[in-house]
Amino acid sequence: MDKIRVIEVKESVFKNNNEHAALLRKKLKERGTYLLNVMSSPGSGKTTTLVNVLGRLKERFNIAVMEADIDSDVDARTIANSGIDSIQLHTGGMCHLDASMTEQGIDNLNNKNYDLIILENVGNLVCPAEFDTGSIKNMNILSVPEGDDKPLKYPLMFEVCDLVVINKIDVLPYFDFDVEKAKANILMRNKNAKIFLISAKTGEGVPELVEYLANEIIRFKTEE
Amino acid sequence: MDKIRVIEVKESVFKNNNEHAALLRKKLKERGTYLLNVMSSPGSGKTTTLVNVLGRLKERFNIAVMEADIDSDVDARTIANSGIDSIQLHTGGMCHLDASMTEQGIDNLNNKNYDLIILENVGNLVCPAEFDTGSIKNMNILSVPEGDDKPLKYPLMFEVCDLVVINKIDVLPYFDFDVEKAKANILMRNKNAKIFLISAKTGEGVPELVEYLANEIIRFKTEE
Repeated sequence: MDKIRVIEVKESVFKNNNEHAALLRKKLKERGTYLLNVMSSPGSGKTTTLVNVLGRLKERFNIAVMEADIDSDVDARTIANSGIDSIQLHTGGMCHLDASMTEQGIDNLNNKNYDLIILENVGNLVCPAEFDTGSIKNMNILSVPEGDDKPLKYPLMFEVCDLVVINKIDVLPYFDFDVEKAKANILMRNKNAKIFLISAKTGEGVPELVEYLANEIIRFKTEE
Repeated sequence: MDKIRVIEVKESVFKNNNEHAALLRKKLKERGTYLLNVMSSPGSGKTTTLVNVLGRLKERFNIAVMEADIDSDVDARTIANSGIDSIQLHTGGMCHLDASMTEQGIDNLNNKNYDLIILENVGNLVCPAEFDTGSIKNMNILSVPEGDDKPLKYPLMFEVCDLVVINKIDVLPYFDFDVEKAKANILMRNKNAKIFLISAKTGEGVPELVEYLANEIIRFKTEE
């Protein structure tokens, strides 16, 4: 396979990140590109979920993935191997992405015609939640082994997420993870959150998530 | 039980964190207090590990735990319920602790005669690694569900850790986690890292970790 392209993104020169995020969102709307910001703890299965979900969306939509990482390219390589355009964003030690850094990544993608761009944010439940990246929606992947109390301990992360995917449900029998308690904790932070239960490993629940995202993209591209 | 004491720690006024950390380390050495900085991803089992390990050390040593969190007190409550002195440090949204913040916590503990103070850092593999807290040793808890590739993706974290505890080994059969690969990845980042395999849930491997820490504390208190 080709060498993974690595972009060293720099901190924003803009003083006002929210303003920059709004401008980026407007630009993406004009292009018809749905930007989904995916956040989670390290090891929640972000990349495996993306490979599984995007594998089922790539026949219908033009997709690119931007993998943010401190300094490796493990994930971008995995995505690229699954046949999806992928670049690696290096944050130079910074634990989040702002709108400017996100835009630097988008400007370095192969073309301007993507229906869906996924930003796989740095694996971290704190800093990424504090910055609007210009995304249309924010998604969190909460894996069963992490525990059902994460929304209690990382409130802002769950407040800003429109979509929470509870992953690794295949190992539910081996962990003290109460699905109903997890749902209640998520909804306490954001009463409008959409919640999906999946196993990226076995594929359980993935079709429902795929359908939801497909409808989201179509609605976004067709609405005024 | 008593109400959990919550300390709102402020960012350092010192320009040079490394200098401050060295001063704090010297002060702790004079008191005979071993400060262990525990870092990990959210949900790796830090608190469960501490309850299990400290439960076996508390008859022999005077112990306190400082729980750093964005803004909950779930973990401090769990530790306090197990009969160990515990305070909660709120970082006001910041994703790390520096030496000054750590010292503010220590100054708020009940007494100055602890043999062991545990700093349970914010659950995050990025920012906490960047700041010397003044600790004697740094420990990382890497849980099996997170994957054996974490040292590849969070290099600095594993470079600064003297001690890596691989937790949740009871679920090894259900995950693609290669213990030998994990060990090799850890040692690639720090060839002197001590590695322990445990299940905080079943107690497997915990006695070896407890003995290691007990010896560390005794050596620290008796050496010149």
